[in-house]
This record gives sequence, structure tokens and C-alpha cells, in this order.
Amino acid sequence: MIGIFDSGVGGMTVARSVETLLPDNRIIYYGDLARTPYGSKSPEAIIEYSISNTEFLLGHGAKVIIIACNSAASVASDILRQKFAAPIFEVITPAVERAVTSTVTGNIGVIGTRATIRSGIYDQKIKAQAPELHIFSKACPLLVPLVEEGWVDARETKMILRKYLAPLKQKQIDTLVLGCTHYPLLKDLIQHRMGKNRIRLIDSSIEVALTLQGYLSENPDFGKTLQRGIENRYFVSDITKAAVATAEKIFGRHIDLEKV
Amino acid sequence: MIGIFDSGVGGMTVARSVETLLPDNRIIYYGDLARTPYGSKSPEAIIEYSISNTEFLLGHGAKVIIIACNSAASVASDILRQKFAAPIFEVITPAVERAVTSTVTGNIGVIGTRATIRSGIYDQKIKAQAPELHIFSKACPLLVPLVEEGWVDARETKMILRKYLAPLKQKQIDTLVLGCTHYPLLKDLIQHRMGKNRIRLIDSSIEVALTLQGYLSENPDFGKTLQRGIENRYFVSDITKAAVATAEKIFGRHIDLEKV
Repeated sequence: MIGIFDSGVGGMTVARSVETLLPDNRIIYYGDLARTPYGSKSPEAIIEYSISNTEFLLGHGAKVIIIACNSAASVASDILRQKFAAPIFEVITPAVERAVTSTVTGNIGVIGTRATIRSGIYDQKIKAQAPELHIFSKACPLLVPLVEEGWVDARETKMILRKYLAPLKQKQIDTLVLGCTHYPLLKDLIQHRMGKNRIRLIDSSIEVALTLQGYLSENPDFGKTLQRGIENRYFVSDITKAAVATAEKIFGRHIDLEKV
Repeated sequence: MIGIFDSGVGGMTVARSVETLLPDNRIIYYGDLARTPYGSKSPEAIIEYSISNTEFLLGHGAKVIIIACNSAASVASDILRQKFAAPIFEVITPAVERAVTSTVTGNIGVIGTRATIRSGIYDQKIKAQAPELHIFSKACPLLVPLVEEGWVDARETKMILRKYLAPLKQKQIDTLVLGCTHYPLLKDLIQHRMGKNRIRLIDSSIEVALTLQGYLSENPDFGKTLQRGIENRYFVSDITKAAVATAEKIFGRHIDLEKV
């Protein structure tokens, strides 16, 4: 089983991409809605939560973990890798690698929550691989609440995207990293706004699923240990109507959230 | 000194109203930005945080406490009153009392965060006083992030308000409770949208300040213990640029936030 955790339901975009790319593998998801958002918490707290989320997933049969939360990926990945034997994947590194190989102009845009942009994690990771690139970041704090409100196609959302993306449009970027797991729900609107043929959007949910797919094809014996003949399960530490609605929006079908 | 706490900086609207109505009294504010928002936390956690916030304020010389956070007011007021000898005021009850005496049509609207509206606290408190009244609630989860983004006069905010307030406009309400300490920053826009002479807005920051003013004039000896010849102080458990900007927006001047 593939274990995926996030501070909420946004990480279900990762589950959806894994489901699409690796349909034979079962998924177990844990959304820590009781303690969301992680972005405003201390690194110590995020590390503690990430350890307990990982233990929950491993305890339920996960053999590999995906950290589908930018805040947790940024502060807890290394510690989880030291602490647990299972392979640990996260949403930032694959997106960074794709962005670095994708850009031609050398100008990369990054959008994310205020916490993610303030952390500078994408800048650091991109510069570590290619110091000559230029990175233009823009915090877009309204996008998560807009998605959670279910307004993924609303006129208001289009106007707000126009405002947020205007400074990036001026910077001649050719690659834009969606640095938040909620943003794939706005991908069409963002693509439309930035110009269909001019900008490549990097969707971290797809990139991490591709990375896992590559790992499994390189490690076929490990891949076999993942197969399980049971349904995907979606656990959450708290249930709200908004979470149920966002989960349905992400998958395009009803998702049973199980509160633990 | 008058102690005021909130989960963030929204409660500074209460500090501003207290400053306006009781200019001779010093204020000490505590904004628990490290643990914001309270709305998504368990009652146990909110109670624990409220106790520690109150102890902080009393330890710094506060003689009276205002809970300027709807979530904390709703779950922690009674416990704080049992635990501490100082008078404890909060933002919900004065707004409810004003709404009940203000309405003529008997139709009251309430707007707030998703957590506040889901809790049903305003409905309960209004019904407890006047069971014949009709209450129409609407969660407006985008308004706090819009205020924190500083977009208090933006076209996008006007459009979103139009969408949120449309169902309330249809209900023939004559009184609208602003059930969130951030909303006074949007008061002009909300008043304009709802109709200048048709709807009375209830601003809980003003109502709680009036209630405290009444208490102090009825208890002049107690009032004397509050006077202190030092500056107002604004403590926070975490500092972000957005918090600094919102604080300035609320007061219309620079506010020194002190991190503790």
C-alpha cells in the first residue's frame, strides 16, 4: 500500500495522480484536519505531527510514504527518512527537478501559500541545482480558501488569479510551479491566465506520482510488496463539510472520509 | 490595565474600540498567532490556550479580560470566569444583546467564519433571549483571508461580499451581526451592500467596549484600579508581515508588535 499524508484534503490531488498513474496499487491516505494548517506551526510541531502521521500509515500497512504537504515536506522529510526504513517521497523535490529541466528562458515562477513562499524552500532547492536560474515567487493566500469554498470556476476566483499572476506574467517566466497541493484544482484557470502555449505548469501531484512510478519500475521486487487487494482508504482526524466537498471536487466522485 | 486576547490580530478591532471609548485606560493585547486559527481546534485545546493567554495578561498587570476571539468566547468564557477572579468580558454576548433589542422585523442575520457559524453559538444565544426571532446565518470563510491580504477595498472583495450577502438580502433582515473580529474592517462595504438605511450592523468590537464602559461606570472603584500611566502594548506569539499590515490597517497607524 502507498501511504500519503497531508495536513488536510489538498494532498488528495496527489492520491488522485497516484491512482491515475499506478492504478493497481492501493492507497491509504491520512489528512490531519484536526491540526490543519501546518504552514503556521513551528518546525518542531510539524515534525512531531509528521512522525505520528507516518506511524499511522505504516501501522495500517503502507510500505512507502508520500508527504503530500509542502510544509511537512520542507521541514520533516530528512527526519522521517532517518527514522523510518520505508522509502519516503515528497512533493517539493520532483517539482523542482521538473522545473529546472523544463525552463528555457531560465525564469521560473513559484506560487504557494504565504508559509511556503516565506520559507523560500523552492528558491533554495532550485538554486541548489541551477544557481543561474531566476526565481519569481508569489504568495497566493486566497487560493486555498477559494478552493475550499468550492469556487474553482467562479468569476471571483478568475479575478483574484488575474491579480496574483500579473507580476509573474511580466517576468517572462516559461515555467510555473504550483507549490501547493490545492492548486491543481485551479490548473485550467491558471493555464488560461498565463497563456496556453507560453507557460508550462508544474503540478507537484503528478511529478511525485511519476517519481514513485519510476522508483517502482526500477525496484520491481519492492513494487510487488505494495499490491493489496483492498479498497483505497481515506482517513482524517476531523471531518468538515468543506473537506468532504473538496475531496469530491478533487476526485470527481464521492469519497468516504473515515474519521480516526 | 485592560487585557485583550485573540487567536490573532483580528481582535485588535476590539482594542481599537476600547481605545476610542475608554482612552484613559491602558491596554495590553495578546495575539496567539503561533496557534491561530482557534476555529479549527478542539474545545480542549482552545480552553488550554485561553487559560494561558489569560494568565499572561494578568501576569502583565491586566485587571479585566476581554476575550476578543469568537471561538474562545464560545467555549472558554465560563471556565475562565470560574478560574479567575478578574471580570471576564467577551465579544459574543454584547453583540447578541444589541441584535435582540435592535431588530424590528424579527429577522436577524449573522455572518462569521465557518467554525463560528457551524458552532451555532449566535443562534443559541439569540434564541435563549428571544425564541420568536428568526436567525439567518451565513459562513463567509473568504473574508478573513481577504482582510489579511489587505484587500479591504478591492473590487474582488466587493464581488465576494455580494455573493455572500445575497441570500441574507433576500430574507428581509434588518439587523446583521458581524460575528468575527476581522469584519469591522469591511463594515463600510457590507453596509453599502446591505443598504445604508435598511440594515443595522452590529459590530461586536464596539458592543463589548460599550459593555465594559458601562461596567466601569457602575463600578468606579474598580475602574480606578485600571489606570496606569504606561503605553498600550501589543504582544504576539508569532510575527508575520501580514499580521503587521493588518494591525496597521485596523489602527490606521503603525503598531509595535512585541513577540513573546
